[in-house]
Amino acid sequence: MVRIGIDMMGGDLAPQEVIKGCKAYISDNTGSTHLVLIGDETKVQPLLADAGIPDNSYTFIHAPEVIEMNEHPTKALKEKQHSSIAIGFHLLATGETDAFISAGNTGAMMVGALFSIKTIEGVSRPTIGAYLPREDGSLGLLVDVGLNADCKPENLNQFATLGSLFARNILNIDNPRTGLLNIGEEEGKGNLLAQAAFPLLKENQHIHFIGNVEGRDLLIDKAEVYVCDGFTGNVILKMAESIYDLVKRRNINDEHFNRFNFEMYGGVPVLGVAKPVIIGHGVSQATAFKNMIRTAVAMLQTGLNEKIKEAFSGTESLKK
Amino acid sequence: MVRIGIDMMGGDLAPQEVIKGCKAYISDNTGSTHLVLIGDETKVQPLLADAGIPDNSYTFIHAPEVIEMNEHPTKALKEKQHSSIAIGFHLLATGETDAFISAGNTGAMMVGALFSIKTIEGVSRPTIGAYLPREDGSLGLLVDVGLNADCKPENLNQFATLGSLFARNILNIDNPRTGLLNIGEEEGKGNLLAQAAFPLLKENQHIHFIGNVEGRDLLIDKAEVYVCDGFTGNVILKMAESIYDLVKRRNINDEHFNRFNFEMYGGVPVLGVAKPVIIGHGVSQATAFKNMIRTAVAMLQTGLNEKIKEAFSGTESLKK
Repeated sequence: MVRIGIDMMGGDLAPQEVIKGCKAYISDNTGSTHLVLIGDETKVQPLLADAGIPDNSYTFIHAPEVIEMNEHPTKALKEKQHSSIAIGFHLLATGETDAFISAGNTGAMMVGALFSIKTIEGVSRPTIGAYLPREDGSLGLLVDVGLNADCKPENLNQFATLGSLFARNILNIDNPRTGLLNIGEEEGKGNLLAQAAFPLLKENQHIHFIGNVEGRDLLIDKAEVYVCDGFTGNVILKMAESIYDLVKRRNINDEHFNRFNFEMYGGVPVLGVAKPVIIGHGVSQATAFKNMIRTAVAMLQTGLNEKIKEAFSGTESLKK
Repeated sequence: MVRIGIDMMGGDLAPQEVIKGCKAYISDNTGSTHLVLIGDETKVQPLLADAGIPDNSYTFIHAPEVIEMNEHPTKALKEKQHSSIAIGFHLLATGETDAFISAGNTGAMMVGALFSIKTIEGVSRPTIGAYLPREDGSLGLLVDVGLNADCKPENLNQFATLGSLFARNILNIDNPRTGLLNIGEEEGKGNLLAQAAFPLLKENQHIHFIGNVEGRDLLIDKAEVYVCDGFTGNVILKMAESIYDLVKRRNINDEHFNRFNFEMYGGVPVLGVAKPVIIGHGVSQATAFKNMIRTAVAMLQTGLNEKIKEAFSGTESLKK
């Protein structure tokens, strides 16, 4: 049975929506998943008692402190060792949980993921991927979206491998087409980073590289995995998120544009670290939390991290 | 009287739409602007004769060659010295025209702008800006959108000055708010480039710097000028263009999203070179060509380049 650690204090709508999400997940998956709920007992326990989640499906861990959204990540993690995020990473690091989910302070989650748990051997820099909604109803993955603002060509190449493995195993895309985000189609185009990354991607046996893709290809069915540095990726992600706000303000109700509501995807996975860590959107609601638990469980059940380990051991050519 | 050079062969719909655009412009502005039309006489002259543009409002210059859309820019400019683009830049360089407009091969236009005519003294790297439609009906400006894929902090600082002057003088925005595109709001955030550019922008007397802005701020009324490297800017521009395609495919007819039709803006200005150069979209139609002529004329009539010269001479603090 997999044990999923969940920060009950993380996000603007915590703990109410976190509890609802947990309940929704457990209703569909009783017996296969054990939830480890971490939070302030005075705030969470009364609500939890009323929620009707079966007692044997979770353990509650008291965390008297909370890292607020605007706190400095490194400082807060150091000073608030009894916060739900610090305890969550502690439980993950010591093996008491198998994954950790929080919609709390994003910076603290990044710092925790990078420094509390190990990076998979061979991975130089873990990455954060984000989903991109496509018109056919499927999802693409954009890596990196902010963990690595400055990148070396090798980093992009590794993001491609990590993203492709995630797309294959979690998004269930057979042979995900992987594109290098660039400002022109031909090899040789781009900034120095993209120019140097291209030949590495071309040689990468773990991915199905389709060459350069451009900004206009991000929202269409051109590739399943889009690779870029974390600066560009973060700008794209936030711009894509803002399209949804704009659509709502304009009173447009369109099935496809509704899928630009990034809240429903339930957070973005950190890839390349030894255990699944999912960073939720601050405004996550019940469905988002439910989906984050599903993603974490899928990452464990498909053995994604073992496959990543294999890929980075350099011995196996990996097609799932 | 200002003399505007126009490539009659540039763009997918040339020369028909170029001619229509010229006619539309001249109808509104007889007597103040002289058009210098450059193209293949066998293809353009018959259509021109039928168009009914007053004879005394234009001069026709024969250019027997055309640089095609897919040709290598530097190579084509060198080999096709009798192409409309090469002749257009020649006329501009020798002072026979005051500005040059083309919707032809973008790369050739960039190379021509950089190497045929002088850069304004003090400008290290000219830049290309693109309009960003905003909900209030106004336009913001994004610089750079692809001329400089790799940038130094000083480049971004100069783009900010160039963009602000353009926004003030051409977009008629009194004191344009200028934001540094970044992945966090606070000073110190971002990649190394953004971190190093921030203090320069803060000290820049020619701009109204409002600090960092993020991807989510690009489509809203947060700043009038957004500054970033040409890699990021190009990805954003192409992604923004693709939103319009998506909206049309979804059969959405919304006043604001219709303004994401970048064709109607009629091309992007090259800033920092001694004379106005406007690079049109490949699919430009009559209105786009008309608008490009208007922009070029406005750049001349407001004395934009003199103001840029003044700003970069380092002696004058410039608020229009």
